[in-house]
Amino acid sequence: MNILITGGGGFIGSRLAAALRKKHPDARIRLLDVGFPNPPGKSFDCTTGDLAAPEVIASALGHDTDAVFHLAAVVSGGAEADFDLGYRVNLDGTRALLEGCRKLARPPRLVFASSVAAFGGTLPDVLDDSTTPAPQTSYGTQKVISEYLVADFTRKGMIDGRSLRLPTIVVRPGKPNLAASSFASGIIREPLAGAVSECPVPDTTGVWILSPRRVVEAFVHALELPSSVWPTTRVVNLPGITLTVREMIDAMGRVAGRETAERVKFKPDPRIQAIVRTWPVRFRTERADAMGFKADPDFESIVRDHIESEKAAATA
Amino acid sequence: MNILITGGGGFIGSRLAAALRKKHPDARIRLLDVGFPNPPGKSFDCTTGDLAAPEVIASALGHDTDAVFHLAAVVSGGAEADFDLGYRVNLDGTRALLEGCRKLARPPRLVFASSVAAFGGTLPDVLDDSTTPAPQTSYGTQKVISEYLVADFTRKGMIDGRSLRLPTIVVRPGKPNLAASSFASGIIREPLAGAVSECPVPDTTGVWILSPRRVVEAFVHALELPSSVWPTTRVVNLPGITLTVREMIDAMGRVAGRETAERVKFKPDPRIQAIVRTWPVRFRTERADAMGFKADPDFESIVRDHIESEKAAATA
Repeated sequence: MNILITGGGGFIGSRLAAALRKKHPDARIRLLDVGFPNPPGKSFDCTTGDLAAPEVIASALGHDTDAVFHLAAVVSGGAEADFDLGYRVNLDGTRALLEGCRKLARPPRLVFASSVAAFGGTLPDVLDDSTTPAPQTSYGTQKVISEYLVADFTRKGMIDGRSLRLPTIVVRPGKPNLAASSFASGIIREPLAGAVSECPVPDTTGVWILSPRRVVEAFVHALELPSSVWPTTRVVNLPGITLTVREMIDAMGRVAGRETAERVKFKPDPRIQAIVRTWPVRFRTERADAMGFKADPDFESIVRDHIESEKAAATA
Repeated sequence: MNILITGGGGFIGSRLAAALRKKHPDARIRLLDVGFPNPPGKSFDCTTGDLAAPEVIASALGHDTDAVFHLAAVVSGGAEADFDLGYRVNLDGTRALLEGCRKLARPPRLVFASSVAAFGGTLPDVLDDSTTPAPQTSYGTQKVISEYLVADFTRKGMIDGRSLRLPTIVVRPGKPNLAASSFASGIIREPLAGAVSECPVPDTTGVWILSPRRVVEAFVHALELPSSVWPTTRVVNLPGITLTVREMIDAMGRVAGRETAERVKFKPDPRIQAIVRTWPVRFRTERADAMGFKADPDFESIVRDHIESEKAAATA
């Protein structure tokens, strides 16, 4: 098996790469990204370059790739701040990748990381598989457009595509990033590391959450599902759990103590609030549930997972 | 007022140009198209060229365009037959136009001709404003993607966009074209002209219809509506009337006699049927109704309109 992961130098991409390596010891796994801050080890082939450049895509795909995970993207806050960059990477990049796939010997399976940022505007209290995407950010727009491209290239037999609308992934390790959702990890990660975290949104803000562990499982599962179980849209809203910022902090307090929870300070940021306010909070994910995708059981287990993987990273 | 109509050499584009000229005698009206088979008269500026070429767009837009009607497209059958051409014109072309608009002195109003080909797959019996687009053609995919671009460029204040999902326009004059819906006009136009028409779909096939007169009115109305009445998606399903092929033929018979109706012959075409089968037939158009868009009162009046405009064209 020959696998390509775009965004393979990122946090989820590198975890996905490790999970795939475990499952497929003999696979060629190629990672494409603009950089590899944490070198991914010798068992991976790395390509550094611009996703929107056809020659980069061609080199990364070769001619015998079977499976593509498309995770590379300019994140929400970044695409909102730099309109041209967002369209170049998140739309032109997706298209260049699909065009590259079309030239392969066999249509590859392709799993696309879409986002619940697809949704916005006037939303029902609980979203479901019939809710129409109405993104309120350029990032969300680019994700929805890419979903439609994945569906059309699939219908034409050029790829076998599968799009996953990811909840907010919590807890992301490392540093805060430009994603408007960065706070949702920051309010857990920084206090657990002994630091103060500034939360830009009120503690009543709801978040639709999936853990890093579960999202990696979802990517692997999405690749393995037979083509026949996917709807013609090729899109599924992944399961998740809904928590307010307050509930997240309280759960962290139960796992790690009250003094940890008290390291979260509130410092309103209207720019972040304006983006986050448009995101959906509650879903019924009947299609994903029927397809075997899994949410986390509770937030405490997400916090414990994070503590354990930080320990493992520190001793590695 | 300075107006640009892309696809201004086409049937609807040229009728729209004439209607706008009547309404705005002093406006500069520029038509952009790949060709002008029927020269549009001295009161219009014409630009011949490729919509996807930024320099063509720049020349057609100038720097002081107030209003853009974006009608140019590779039609459904054409975009399905030539994947690359469809994406180049229907997606890259739209994007080039929006990028051009972004460079203007003031954000122009832009009315985009989308299509009910946005819908497909498993559909409810009656579609409404909440139905999620799931196109089953590349043409439909390109229209939906363009709608999302129009919404995002509008949200960013680069244009003031309005997308209309057009029903099948009946009766188109002239020759059959590559649109899979071409038969819906052919079965009326050819018999009225004394010729036999071959209908590629069964007479039970339903069609969601709007007349040329009403769609031109809708374009003008869409431009005039204030920004505030548009939803954030900037899309509206236009009103129409639903008829089966049999009902259309019978109505023509009532207007023009039984021998005319008998000139329709049925010659099944699986390729056309496969496309048409995915199109929606019945809608509730509450949003459009509330915004003042109008359907035709009945099919007989559409047939009579067509007869009259053919007479006018013949004596012109």
